Amino acid sequence: MPVNLAAPDPASLLSVPGVELGIASAGIKKSGRKDVLVMQLAHDSEVVGVFTQNRFCAAPVTVCKEHLHGEDGIRALVVNTGNANAGTGEDGLRRARETCAAVAENLNIKPQQVLPFSTGVILEPLPHDKIIAALPAAFADLKAANWAAAAEAIMTTDVVAKAASRKVAMNGQDFALTGIAKGSGMIHPNMATMLSFVATDAPVSCEALEAILRYAVNKSFNCITVDGDTSTNDSCILIATGATEAPVIMDDGDPRFPTLRDVVTEVMIQLAQAIVRDGEGATKFMAIRVEGGRDEAECKQIAYAVAKSPLVKTAFFASDPNLGRILAAVGYAGVADLDVDKIKLWLGGVMVAENGGRSPSYQEAEGQRVMAAPEIEVRLHLGRGDAVATVWTCDFSYDYVKINAEYRT
Amino acid sequence: MPVNLAAPDPASLLSVPGVELGIASAGIKKSGRKDVLVMQLAHDSEVVGVFTQNRFCAAPVTVCKEHLHGEDGIRALVVNTGNANAGTGEDGLRRARETCAAVAENLNIKPQQVLPFSTGVILEPLPHDKIIAALPAAFADLKAANWAAAAEAIMTTDVVAKAASRKVAMNGQDFALTGIAKGSGMIHPNMATMLSFVATDAPVSCEALEAILRYAVNKSFNCITVDGDTSTNDSCILIATGATEAPVIMDDGDPRFPTLRDVVTEVMIQLAQAIVRDGEGATKFMAIRVEGGRDEAECKQIAYAVAKSPLVKTAFFASDPNLGRILAAVGYAGVADLDVDKIKLWLGGVMVAENGGRSPSYQEAEGQRVMAAPEIEVRLHLGRGDAVATVWTCDFSYDYVKINAEYRT
Repeated sequence: MPVNLAAPDPASLLSVPGVELGIASAGIKKSGRKDVLVMQLAHDSEVVGVFTQNRFCAAPVTVCKEHLHGEDGIRALVVNTGNANAGTGEDGLRRARETCAAVAENLNIKPQQVLPFSTGVILEPLPHDKIIAALPAAFADLKAANWAAAAEAIMTTDVVAKAASRKVAMNGQDFALTGIAKGSGMIHPNMATMLSFVATDAPVSCEALEAILRYAVNKSFNCITVDGDTSTNDSCILIATGATEAPVIMDDGDPRFPTLRDVVTEVMIQLAQAIVRDGEGATKFMAIRVEGGRDEAECKQIAYAVAKSPLVKTAFFASDPNLGRILAAVGYAGVADLDVDKIKLWLGGVMVAENGGRSPSYQEAEGQRVMAAPEIEVRLHLGRGDAVATVWTCDFSYDYVKINAEYRT
Repeated sequence: MPVNLAAPDPASLLSVPGVELGIASAGIKKSGRKDVLVMQLAHDSEVVGVFTQNRFCAAPVTVCKEHLHGEDGIRALVVNTGNANAGTGEDGLRRARETCAAVAENLNIKPQQVLPFSTGVILEPLPHDKIIAALPAAFADLKAANWAAAAEAIMTTDVVAKAASRKVAMNGQDFALTGIAKGSGMIHPNMATMLSFVATDAPVSCEALEAILRYAVNKSFNCITVDGDTSTNDSCILIATGATEAPVIMDDGDPRFPTLRDVVTEVMIQLAQAIVRDGEGATKFMAIRVEGGRDEAECKQIAYAVAKSPLVKTAFFASDPNLGRILAAVGYAGVADLDVDKIKLWLGGVMVAENGGRSPSYQEAEGQRVMAAPEIEVRLHLGRGDAVATVWTCDFSYDYVKINAEYRT
């Protein structure tokens, strides 16, 4: 059961001028659910992306990078679920390229103007003929008001569709910003088994859009973990169609730049947290906040050690304030000169540990009370600097095992 | 259910001249099971140890290190289960020291000649008064033929007691080598929630014994993982009583050195594998062998990424040859310049992947057949050198979650 997460109300998702979305069922998923999404973008849209750092990156990721580096502007995205086209070698690249070519032919653009995305089972040949056969239905469905249906079409083990939308007011002009994401297991930076597509109609230069994307991803998708497994297919795409007329935001000197950057970050944090709230088998949502580090990197390193620990995650599942497991994870996080006597640990507002041991004021009943809630903050202070980082994660339940043991059956 | 692991036959465990063991129930464990072990060592025994690298190392680990660095030879070990005396600060150190003092008083030795060990719940005050009250019963029980009972007394979530024994023939003389270990969850180098005590009656210098211990631990306890969590209390102790008369093995120039080193390694591998076979909730035992690396370190790094992945471990639990998860783990192991097109992957004897994708010869039915067995070898070849490393692990089942969610209830 997702933790405090409901499916998006379609009416709350703003259409983004310059983006139309069409969905279809290609029959890749046995369930017959929608499994293909096509996004068509206005001429002159700027598109930037960040991708998995897994060495076994999937064929569509390789093709995306090629096409983004090309001279021709991106005009379409094609996404399938049910099959990741990963660990598929040269043949996988060919199938991804043929899919792009089929989209291009339909839209009268070049294959290099199409970005392909796949998510699902690894190491199985992509049934790209099925995707190609479903394209006419997807094109017939193209419309601006299709974001909620698109969010549903890209789900795999997700229980709830994930979307977020904001109106961005800049210089007295209103723009739309809407994004969707999928992901539930194999979630860990950099990035995770996740796809996310976020678009605005504001006009933004490629350089400025790139800067906004990196900033926002670092504060959102690169701050979550479900199981520590990073996937072969992770992709996050930011689109600026420029379909609404306004002077182009060229760089961070433009006063509209921080406004747009912060709203993009807000939307991406909402999507990233939604992935954790819908983490496979999740019953609790936890924020691990590490303060007082020398730099952000060591704070994140410790936060991730805690967030990834199966022992910590099962204790949270059981609502058991077995807080020693948190300290043990801090201890093995790999920060060599950490002075454990200076560490303070709070669970919610309750101080649990200080001076290398349990806090004299701590009452187990209070820890229990905090643990019983569906949302829990774990706060650590390292006592060696001013840096801070937060990582979001979920607990580890029977259902995580069940979902992943039965994934292909 | 432990995987191909039975409790040791007490008759198979050789007594080690110079070592006597006594056990008792101190009532730390609610179950009333035996929870205290005392080992008394012959005068002039050499004792060496390796300990957790967790920054939050437990109070007994700190005291052990102090006492091992002292001038006085170690004459006794005291072990309790049920409470780890970790995350307990200054007060924990005091309680560990008072326990040593009580043992010393009973045996008429100095407190610095006693090594303390604790395993169990973290962040709770050690009920050392209960341990001290149980010492007379443990001393009354001291005998050389108590290894099997000792192996049982140090269990926590272990289902099966772990012990191994060999006769060591050197220069026409027979020596005994017997060891016990405990550990089941929170298992990962360097080291794990594990305690191991291995003793021989051969006379060995401190330096030679230290060299043997480091060699053997690197090939045994530092090659296993259950859940990737390293504990605060891990300790592995190697004892040479010298109680059987023979010239002392001074260093690796002695021809008996490699003989003893290899038997110690064999015993420690058996104990380490026993910990994995009895991994919390384990239903499968897996060896992850990585060949063809540039050095042993990168082979181990990749083997551990595979061995730790919750997705790989749940797939093995389900007997599902979802081998893409293995490749994904290889890809995120952190070896930056890995050429994935050169990687070969076998499951048992079956080639599964090559040239960046699924092997053309691979039949899923064959993968399924291998996965159905309780013992599985995953073999990877990186195609970039001659180094090799093997890591042992177990699968990830409902029962892992159950055991760890209910640990304190």
